[in-house]
Amino acid sequence: MHHAADILLTLFIIFIAAQIGAEVAQRMKLPGVVGEIAAGCVVGPSLLGWLTPAEILPGTPLDVMAEIGVVMLLFSVGLETRLDDLKKVGKSAFLVGVLGVVVPFGLGALWAHGEGYDWIKSLFVAAAFVATSAGITARVLQELGVLSRVESRVILGAAVIDDILAMLLLGVVSSLQGGGELNLQSLLLTLAGAVGFVAVFGWAGTKVMRRGSPWLDKPISPHSPLTLVLAICLGLAWLSTRFGLAAIIGAFLAGMIASETRQREDLEHQTMPLLSFLTPFFFVVTGAKVNLSELASVDALVMLAVVTVIAIISKFAGGFLGALSLGRRSAAIVGFGMVPRGEVGVVIAALGLTAGVFNERVYAIIVAMSLLTAMVTPPVLAMLLKRDPPAA
Amino acid sequence: MHHAADILLTLFIIFIAAQIGAEVAQRMKLPGVVGEIAAGCVVGPSLLGWLTPAEILPGTPLDVMAEIGVVMLLFSVGLETRLDDLKKVGKSAFLVGVLGVVVPFGLGALWAHGEGYDWIKSLFVAAAFVATSAGITARVLQELGVLSRVESRVILGAAVIDDILAMLLLGVVSSLQGGGELNLQSLLLTLAGAVGFVAVFGWAGTKVMRRGSPWLDKPISPHSPLTLVLAICLGLAWLSTRFGLAAIIGAFLAGMIASETRQREDLEHQTMPLLSFLTPFFFVVTGAKVNLSELASVDALVMLAVVTVIAIISKFAGGFLGALSLGRRSAAIVGFGMVPRGEVGVVIAALGLTAGVFNERVYAIIVAMSLLTAMVTPPVLAMLLKRDPPAA
Repeated sequence: MHHAADILLTLFIIFIAAQIGAEVAQRMKLPGVVGEIAAGCVVGPSLLGWLTPAEILPGTPLDVMAEIGVVMLLFSVGLETRLDDLKKVGKSAFLVGVLGVVVPFGLGALWAHGEGYDWIKSLFVAAAFVATSAGITARVLQELGVLSRVESRVILGAAVIDDILAMLLLGVVSSLQGGGELNLQSLLLTLAGAVGFVAVFGWAGTKVMRRGSPWLDKPISPHSPLTLVLAICLGLAWLSTRFGLAAIIGAFLAGMIASETRQREDLEHQTMPLLSFLTPFFFVVTGAKVNLSELASVDALVMLAVVTVIAIISKFAGGFLGALSLGRRSAAIVGFGMVPRGEVGVVIAALGLTAGVFNERVYAIIVAMSLLTAMVTPPVLAMLLKRDPPAA
Repeated sequence: MHHAADILLTLFIIFIAAQIGAEVAQRMKLPGVVGEIAAGCVVGPSLLGWLTPAEILPGTPLDVMAEIGVVMLLFSVGLETRLDDLKKVGKSAFLVGVLGVVVPFGLGALWAHGEGYDWIKSLFVAAAFVATSAGITARVLQELGVLSRVESRVILGAAVIDDILAMLLLGVVSSLQGGGELNLQSLLLTLAGAVGFVAVFGWAGTKVMRRGSPWLDKPISPHSPLTLVLAICLGLAWLSTRFGLAAIIGAFLAGMIASETRQREDLEHQTMPLLSFLTPFFFVVTGAKVNLSELASVDALVMLAVVTVIAIISKFAGGFLGALSLGRRSAAIVGFGMVPRGEVGVVIAALGLTAGVFNERVYAIIVAMSLLTAMVTPPVLAMLLKRDPPAA
């Protein structure tokens, strides 16, 4: 009679696992998010198997819940970010975004070529080293209450630029891999679309909201203005995928737009319960996606170690160099903040597997690397931020 | 690259449709929920087709979102309900629950037999007339801010009893239909399980919570106690399905348990944004499930009209008689509050279709009847409640 019974049990398990994981992590002086990802590993297919591989495939209810969770997270981060604050760090953010893409892409391609791939395939593998996933870092910054620090703003701005560049890069390597001509015109169009999307909604959206804020007081539903900004969040999250960007970029912009309203503080309060309920699904499902069995050999573990070290060092170096004008300690925070690859690297790896560019093992290693970077970052970032006096 | 893009668009459409529907309904002096269900009809497969039939099947992401939405709704209704208040109306609620099952079951069986079904099949069809879906009424009562009225408490108490009886009835007719012997022992066990579940968690749960409330102050996560009670909500929602009851019964009990804590008011505030975001999915998806094309003949429409009138009158009569001790006006409110069948009738109808008890058209008619009762109730209920002075 009750088809929904199984999914309710799964949601319950994920939710409880997240709370226990976060509590354990916090007692170990680690950010809660590390515990949530680890809890996902534990309840996932690799260990306890309470979540099956089929349950966390793309498009399943859990995957959708996870996506909504990270969309809400970046929306709430946007809510704590003003466009004017981002503008102030525009130059640093741009440098961090560009160098944070170029360095990992270059080192990744060199490593893959060294492993015996031809140059075109190497570029594809390298693309999986590139894209920063802002979700993990955003959560750590939010947990520590340092979203208003200049390093946080540089990271968030750079994440937007990073996502645009990663998307272009993926377009280039996909068409090279497909044997097609590199179509400069279509690439420029894609770039213009993505930049246009961010500019129009980031800039014009905030302008409109600043002027039109009283209009939000008009009751559209009992709980507006929350419902109105949630609608904007879902709409921009979808629209940003239409421009080739990650959904979280649109969600972040929606939050930034909403932060210009007079109701900003109310909205921040109202978003909290949504975060509490929905974001655990993202982090637990992220952790559950690690397939430990594919890595159960010395060879694989060595390769994973090498790949992970390259991924961390290259991204750190790019971010560090880009943010050097902030001083070396702040640059280190920014550099480490860009390290997590999260689900974006996973998606590129899945494309590579489907296209036959590499095998199951390389796929598992790239996935594990993405998730390892996501797990390593929070404690290091928390340590750097706690030790450091706030800059600027 | 972005598998989640389509679902984000769908979520956006549903969310916007719900807001527009609610706004239009409120301007027409109707409860917002009517507008949300109607919006579901409009964007659903029958009219605009922005939601496809495949997208709202059981187990799809949208179906799961809808389920979570109604679970949250009944949780929040539970938060506004104290066990002691329910106890005061225990006798009336019990009578309403029992008569509200017996009368529709009897009239439904008579109608089906008159249509030419043998008695055993008639009992199966009649079972689809029985189960009240508390979601719709709960939302109307909440919208009007009358959850503390005695009629509301009778309706909520009766909904629990109704669900237990409907579950037993379904067990009986299923085993009769399957040609099996009626196993009295297993039925009694089922009854004992369901009653035991409600009693243990409703009674012992609230006792424990009253005593253990300070324990909630201990921070398990940044946003507890909310996360703790949400975990209880998911856990009991799942557990109640294990006892054959609807998930919303467990969610309601969880809310009632949480209402005994000192943090009750905080929790009510924090639950609001979850409701705003999640419940629209339930009502829009409910509306989208109406298949208008199956009803595009005079015969079908006449049959639908007859079935709907029987369903409304029989449930109203049962509830009215059961609540007569409250006075006739209050009894009328209770009677109408029990009318909506919502998704429970739909589930039984789907079982009947699969078991070959009746054909596609009878299925479509039962589904449409369930949803018509859900759409007719809110305006009538709102009218009765607004006109009436509060009783007791």
